[in-house]
Amino acid sequence: MNPSLTLYYTPGTCALAVRIALEEANAPYRLERVDFASQQQRTPEYLAINPKGRVPALVTEQGVLTEAPALLAYVAQRFADARLAPTDLFGLARLMEFNSYLSSTVHINHAHRPRAGRWADDAEAQAAMQQKVPANMTENFSYIEHHYLNGPWVLGDDYSVCDAYLFTMSGWLKSDGVDIAQFPKVHDHHRRMSERAAVQRALA
Amino acid sequence: MNPSLTLYYTPGTCALAVRIALEEANAPYRLERVDFASQQQRTPEYLAINPKGRVPALVTEQGVLTEAPALLAYVAQRFADARLAPTDLFGLARLMEFNSYLSSTVHINHAHRPRAGRWADDAEAQAAMQQKVPANMTENFSYIEHHYLNGPWVLGDDYSVCDAYLFTMSGWLKSDGVDIAQFPKVHDHHRRMSERAAVQRALA
Repeated sequence: MNPSLTLYYTPGTCALAVRIALEEANAPYRLERVDFASQQQRTPEYLAINPKGRVPALVTEQGVLTEAPALLAYVAQRFADARLAPTDLFGLARLMEFNSYLSSTVHINHAHRPRAGRWADDAEAQAAMQQKVPANMTENFSYIEHHYLNGPWVLGDDYSVCDAYLFTMSGWLKSDGVDIAQFPKVHDHHRRMSERAAVQRALA
Repeated sequence: MNPSLTLYYTPGTCALAVRIALEEANAPYRLERVDFASQQQRTPEYLAINPKGRVPALVTEQGVLTEAPALLAYVAQRFADARLAPTDLFGLARLMEFNSYLSSTVHINHAHRPRAGRWADDAEAQAAMQQKVPANMTENFSYIEHHYLNGPWVLGDDYSVCDAYLFTMSGWLKSDGVDIAQFPKVHDHHRRMSERAAVQRALA
């Protein structure tokens, strides 16, 4: 059977979360690596798939989907047997709340280090932004530690796509100059995630 | 009947989108205004509701929900009769993709004007960020004009909570120094939204 899904992927990006979700779901999918080093994301071929020039992008039978929170919910709901998302209204809203916080606050704060040029042209301004990244990431992960990570998993007793997304972001702390050990629950979560077979396949 | 939902709201913020969605759904809800001018969002009373100190927050029978994309999906799915969201998997993913783009790209680019201090402490760096806001917002709305707004409504023929969210963000263009008239479809969308009874009630 030909996989009907293709994930456009670059290691080290938030596309990892979607790859983990697909692995957890045992979903049939094809992986296409987008090489940022050679600026492949800016080629006409890739821009025809995702005009934003970013990853992840997920090609489905019905069209291309982008934005990590949308892809995570789509994978969880399409492969419902894998139970990667709550099915009740409130539980699903909690999932979307957490993923939205990661994408619009945590990922953004991280991005001010490697992608400061998005928000200012001036080199000194970019350096000032980069300098603030450790403090912002520390504040965000302190919030996650105290307000979001209440069970063994983000949503409590049940594993979900939120865990794949959190694992991806907590994996960035070291490069942002933040010691994950100051957040014991996040640290333990990261360690337990690393041991999952699906995560190891996604990182391979 | 006592409304079971309470929306914590500040005019001029993205909470407007959630208020519009509640009005479109004819949902019973109570409105609590959070006064940013007196820093009410930093009081212990409000932080007990939303420890992030932001709006919107929606108090439900099951707990408090935050993050605009999560609230919009929750309102649409809770008041399903109002048909504010597609019910098929791919359509719902499209809705989440668009709302995620608005929250993690458009809202963030806008925020670098009034909230530049989030990402750098230095006053000159903040000024450099503010200077880039019109260019970033122009690029984002050009993308929306050409890639997202294909029907009379964001998702095509059917009105959805995406339209309430887009209306909220396109209403910020003027203060960001961007002329909405250069995006004819966005401009027309904004005008048609302004005429809806639910939008007029939400702005009242």
